[in-house]
Amino acid sequence: MNNFTFYNPVKILFGKGQISSITKEIPTGARIMVTYGGGSIKKNGVYDQVMAALQDFEVSEFGGIEPNPHYETLMKAVALAKEKQVTFFLAVGGGSVIDGTKFIVAAMEYEGENPWNILAKREPVTRATPFGTVLTLPATGSEMNSGAVVTRVSTKEKFSFGSPFTFPKFSVLDPETTFTLPARQISNGIVDAFSHVLEQYLTYPVNAPLQDRMAEAILLTLKEEGPKAVQNPQDYDTMANFMWAATMALNGVIRVGVPTDWATHYIGHELTALHGIDHARTLAIVFPALLRYKSETKKEKLLQYGDRVWGVASGSESERLEATLQATVDFFESLGIKTRLSDYEVGEDTINTIIRRFEERGVKDLGERADIQIQDVKEILTLSL
Amino acid sequence: MNNFTFYNPVKILFGKGQISSITKEIPTGARIMVTYGGGSIKKNGVYDQVMAALQDFEVSEFGGIEPNPHYETLMKAVALAKEKQVTFFLAVGGGSVIDGTKFIVAAMEYEGENPWNILAKREPVTRATPFGTVLTLPATGSEMNSGAVVTRVSTKEKFSFGSPFTFPKFSVLDPETTFTLPARQISNGIVDAFSHVLEQYLTYPVNAPLQDRMAEAILLTLKEEGPKAVQNPQDYDTMANFMWAATMALNGVIRVGVPTDWATHYIGHELTALHGIDHARTLAIVFPALLRYKSETKKEKLLQYGDRVWGVASGSESERLEATLQATVDFFESLGIKTRLSDYEVGEDTINTIIRRFEERGVKDLGERADIQIQDVKEILTLSL
Repeated sequence: MNNFTFYNPVKILFGKGQISSITKEIPTGARIMVTYGGGSIKKNGVYDQVMAALQDFEVSEFGGIEPNPHYETLMKAVALAKEKQVTFFLAVGGGSVIDGTKFIVAAMEYEGENPWNILAKREPVTRATPFGTVLTLPATGSEMNSGAVVTRVSTKEKFSFGSPFTFPKFSVLDPETTFTLPARQISNGIVDAFSHVLEQYLTYPVNAPLQDRMAEAILLTLKEEGPKAVQNPQDYDTMANFMWAATMALNGVIRVGVPTDWATHYIGHELTALHGIDHARTLAIVFPALLRYKSETKKEKLLQYGDRVWGVASGSESERLEATLQATVDFFESLGIKTRLSDYEVGEDTINTIIRRFEERGVKDLGERADIQIQDVKEILTLSL
Repeated sequence: MNNFTFYNPVKILFGKGQISSITKEIPTGARIMVTYGGGSIKKNGVYDQVMAALQDFEVSEFGGIEPNPHYETLMKAVALAKEKQVTFFLAVGGGSVIDGTKFIVAAMEYEGENPWNILAKREPVTRATPFGTVLTLPATGSEMNSGAVVTRVSTKEKFSFGSPFTFPKFSVLDPETTFTLPARQISNGIVDAFSHVLEQYLTYPVNAPLQDRMAEAILLTLKEEGPKAVQNPQDYDTMANFMWAATMALNGVIRVGVPTDWATHYIGHELTALHGIDHARTLAIVFPALLRYKSETKKEKLLQYGDRVWGVASGSESERLEATLQATVDFFESLGIKTRLSDYEVGEDTINTIIRRFEERGVKDLGERADIQIQDVKEILTLSL
């Protein structure tokens, strides 16, 4: 096992009716800004529950944070929040609203030249306005970690940042808030969470059997509960299990002491930035190709994954690897998520654009062995055509 | 799944060489008291590593905290620490030293009539002096939770307490600190951690498949790594896996949203209080008897446990239950831990004493279904004779 540091101070309030508990978690006298997305929370009753819970506070709001939240939009929220002297933010929505709010709280206290540098130059965040979240879409795990991804529309760039100051103070996970989600968002959430686990699990063995089994526990839960969630998103227990699995997938617990990959995310971000393809779908496109391309260096973990998650136990090594990759693709496709670039009408032009951008950015050494170079990215994307 | 709140702000510094990192985790200018046990840390080099890391601080020390830490001893530490105006504690040792230090930090700031009431009357702790830990014995999980158990020698009472203020600020888990542990302490630690998981897992199903599998992940790790740890306590990876499994067993992760039992701990504490039997050994005595006595109400989880942890998959239901109980007993015994009261020369007299004490204390409604009454305790203990 590798050395590690683990720290996650997010308080989770899980279950039906928990939105009303936020009153106790926010400092008395706070001037709150509620941030949200396209307005679905106003249709499903979540907005009303939140506002009822906040009735004793001074509350302003900022809606319209889009999927893959835009730097441009978030900076408008910062300006408004400064004007309103906001002291506490409450993000109500999915990963994009929460990620966007993490950037807002960091930018609120930023004293450098240009807040874009928090993303583009990874300037360290040294403080941030406190915030909590009410999660309405299980997927990204952002509700229980300190990381965020933000897109700049003007330059079609998508960058991530994180800091010890951008953990939510609390997150409410009420499965009932997910009952009205469209099937597309549920499918995306399942694939997103599943891919988060794969990034931290399908690397190479370092004798960490507990972390392996905990990762497999999440994969097996998503495999079993995922299809049920798509079929019947109003089944409380199903959505509760999906919701908790998605949170556990990226709260740091399964990552401790093991190598992690993240090349698929890095490559996938380009497909979202260039073509607006849903984040989860970019992972479903890149992952199978990357696993095939790197099947030799990832062999031990791939075989273990095939055996323990998909029951692939017989056949030659290459047959088992093939069956494991196919089971992964079949799982994504069974949820209605296409896994090839051509399914999204993306071709070689885009691959060439991505390669050019990576060259300009000097991208190198991706993956858990730092052995994926730009030429490898080209071959991986070509495999996914 | 049941509603739950999860909160665990302990920072974990895991791996070889991590003791030197504590310098960064303690506030500048802190007046530190190092607390420890019988002095093994002075023989294995841990004391020297800790003192080297603390060289820029004002440091006092309090040794001699015994297994099942005594209220009387801890109050002496409080008096000394107040005299020295200590502002930060560092517990260096196993669960007893850490539990004892949790009581010390709570008593330091206690303003009521009698600090014993924190334990005997469960008077709420509203603040505490901050502290960190350097763990040297994987077992109790105290290094990553806020609970503690303290014994009063004069009355032979053993009580627990906990509060949001008694989480360690950080805990160092360096597997190398365990290399000189006697086999008895390693065996105890494995059984203690294993029992912690059973208390949170062997109850009744509430449709929480992820929590179940995470509990099983820890049990399987202890099953595999435990015997290796006893055989070869200087194997780094083995001790690292054991150490992390013991921490994960009681840091709250597997407890979320599921019922928990804890009757075995409650009953076992009496055996330690009355006869000084090692805590883990009391669990190894009580658990098999309790599981047998409650095998009807715990049936679903017992069968799942038998199947997934011990591979008990064939035979009639009663045969599988029997094989599962036997596998558990065999596991404890294989580690050198005896599982019957008679092995410890304890007989019916002690059972009668425990029953009388429970009657005086008005004990009732133990277990996940609150259906274990005093008469049931008597039957369980009789089964374990």
